[in-house]
Amino acid sequence: MSSSIENHKTVPEQFTGYAAFSAETWSDLKLHKFTPKPFGDYDIDIKVRYCGVCGSDLHVLRSGWSPSIYPCVAGHEITGEVIRVGPLVTSSSLQPGSIVGVGSQAWSCGGCDACAGEDIGTKPGDGKDWGAAGEHGHGGEKGLRGGKENYCKEVVETYNWRYKDGSAGYGGYADYVRIHENFVYPIPEGIPEEIVAPMFCGGVTMYSPLRRANIGPGSKVGIVGIGGLGHFGILFAKALGATVTAISHSPRKAADASALGASQFLSTAAPGWNAPHLRTLDLIISTNFSTDMPLGEYLSLLKVGGTLVICGIPEGDLPRLSWADIAAANLAIRGSNVGSKKEIAEMLELVKEKGVKSWVEVVGMKDVEDVVKRLDRGECRYRYVLKADFEE
Amino acid sequence: MSSSIENHKTVPEQFTGYAAFSAETWSDLKLHKFTPKPFGDYDIDIKVRYCGVCGSDLHVLRSGWSPSIYPCVAGHEITGEVIRVGPLVTSSSLQPGSIVGVGSQAWSCGGCDACAGEDIGTKPGDGKDWGAAGEHGHGGEKGLRGGKENYCKEVVETYNWRYKDGSAGYGGYADYVRIHENFVYPIPEGIPEEIVAPMFCGGVTMYSPLRRANIGPGSKVGIVGIGGLGHFGILFAKALGATVTAISHSPRKAADASALGASQFLSTAAPGWNAPHLRTLDLIISTNFSTDMPLGEYLSLLKVGGTLVICGIPEGDLPRLSWADIAAANLAIRGSNVGSKKEIAEMLELVKEKGVKSWVEVVGMKDVEDVVKRLDRGECRYRYVLKADFEE
Repeated sequence: MSSSIENHKTVPEQFTGYAAFSAETWSDLKLHKFTPKPFGDYDIDIKVRYCGVCGSDLHVLRSGWSPSIYPCVAGHEITGEVIRVGPLVTSSSLQPGSIVGVGSQAWSCGGCDACAGEDIGTKPGDGKDWGAAGEHGHGGEKGLRGGKENYCKEVVETYNWRYKDGSAGYGGYADYVRIHENFVYPIPEGIPEEIVAPMFCGGVTMYSPLRRANIGPGSKVGIVGIGGLGHFGILFAKALGATVTAISHSPRKAADASALGASQFLSTAAPGWNAPHLRTLDLIISTNFSTDMPLGEYLSLLKVGGTLVICGIPEGDLPRLSWADIAAANLAIRGSNVGSKKEIAEMLELVKEKGVKSWVEVVGMKDVEDVVKRLDRGECRYRYVLKADFEE
Repeated sequence: MSSSIENHKTVPEQFTGYAAFSAETWSDLKLHKFTPKPFGDYDIDIKVRYCGVCGSDLHVLRSGWSPSIYPCVAGHEITGEVIRVGPLVTSSSLQPGSIVGVGSQAWSCGGCDACAGEDIGTKPGDGKDWGAAGEHGHGGEKGLRGGKENYCKEVVETYNWRYKDGSAGYGGYADYVRIHENFVYPIPEGIPEEIVAPMFCGGVTMYSPLRRANIGPGSKVGIVGIGGLGHFGILFAKALGATVTAISHSPRKAADASALGASQFLSTAAPGWNAPHLRTLDLIISTNFSTDMPLGEYLSLLKVGGTLVICGIPEGDLPRLSWADIAAANLAIRGSNVGSKKEIAEMLELVKEKGVKSWVEVVGMKDVEDVVKRLDRGECRYRYVLKADFEE
């Protein structure tokens, strides 16, 4: 396969990435050559420059949620340079040389309610309303006007997932990635790539529930868990104008929470920690993924009608709940999973406008083995970003 | 204690009701004379004419949720005639002779966020902003402008609850009830009392979550459980303009659901019952109170961003949930508990405007023992209403 005539650089037929080969050896990431999915009319080939290391990479590498597809090249917080664009890609901001990002989603059907919205009268999957479908999907952005395509039932994730033709997806612990144009996001000028890379999954996972709850000046937001996700929760809640309460088991996180923008810090370590703060928050986003997290205590902090959004993904069921936990104050527990293309675009504007800066440690990609082990030990403050260092 | 000079009829010092004396003998309801709380400046004495029999009466009579206060005179779906009003009651619609209703709530603090809203700057419990407090609470309706006083932390329920002075509350299986004016609702002319009585708890329990979710024309609403509560869910969702799907374990409920206004009926008895209906509903209200209800299957029916409101109160924890159950489509589970004074007033207007009619069976109050046993056996279609028949 050669590059099309409009493109200046060539893309190899095989890509090279750092792969895990089994759940048992999940942190032994070895260089691995693989064949990406066939290049489609709407596809973009991107030379990876940075890739964040997300907590979900570790869950997938070790088959923590369900059996993973091996060899597994993880990584879905990617930035890089567009090298080749499919013949039906028309966006002027997705051209060879464009600096772009890729998150955790690589494809959606474009026709369901989540993708296209029911107001345009398309039937799920009929594909007629947004132009010709490429071999791996539809073209153009019309197919995503529903604004909720991250909840499409036919979603294909960037890695550890298969396209309809059986091709596997591969992530950004690699020299190149190949992704449908719908899920390639131009990065506004002036935002450093290593700062924005981890926002394409971790960042938007926090931004989306904040926006969906209309958080803004005057809102009181709690962020549970001050780790990779939680640090984005504080940064974005603050950037949106909210007053932020950081909630963590570990009192050691207090100084960081304050530096990130929280005006109050609550440690859950002491019994009765919640009692002085009952019914004081509008929204809580929990990034705790422990199966025995104190859900009832978190809920007690919410005002009448408030919502607790669960963004940490436990490797098991959620803790048991009683009716009274939620009925006593008309409370809700909501699930949320990453964010939409529209929310990513909005988030990038906010990042540019407010100068939001992820707290990252940049490490050469050749040290990825060490990085995932350090993340597994909880040493991260607060996001590792791999810098691609493949030989040319 | 005598009536005040403005009142034409006298109220006895002791009231008479049908009481249970222990959890073990919960359905042996015997005539019992009791002393109500002292008559306060804002209190209303009502001669009971009708009282609905609510499922929660049974739970409380048998100490199903927690140990109840015995002797227990149940009943919180009351209509009747105002006989005496406290000296500081000013409402022209609460005068001797007024026909009024009483629901499950008898008092709230008037000062917290839920009662008064934070926008008026009052501190919880300071009581300063809504006039002098009577011995059992504040006066006037200003104290309820928060519109969520059903979630006040200091709520006193109509029965099985104690006021701050230690007096017990007694319900409407009785000749008289004494209630603070804030929780006495004028009944608009033209609505039959026996039709409206069960709406003061069962009705508003369904109306409140429908209104809070902005249900109206175009909305698609599911009602789980076609019993006393569920029948109100169908009636009110339909009256608000929604398209209603009735969901019941029992296929025998199909005809009633249709007659109540549902346009679709789903029986959960067959495996895979939900598969043809995934992501089709905006809101589901569940009145199922079984601890092993199929929550995940109910959730699968909701569109992206939808909410399942739990209105049935299990005598135990809710079933276990996985993160994926709620995250796959940005779903929420919300708790809800009856409704507010404002919602009751709105509901009554809707009942009048649309001619909403509860399906009731009216039985003389002297047969209350038989009625609670029949309700316990599930024979009700769909609400029993007791007609007071005490000797004058």
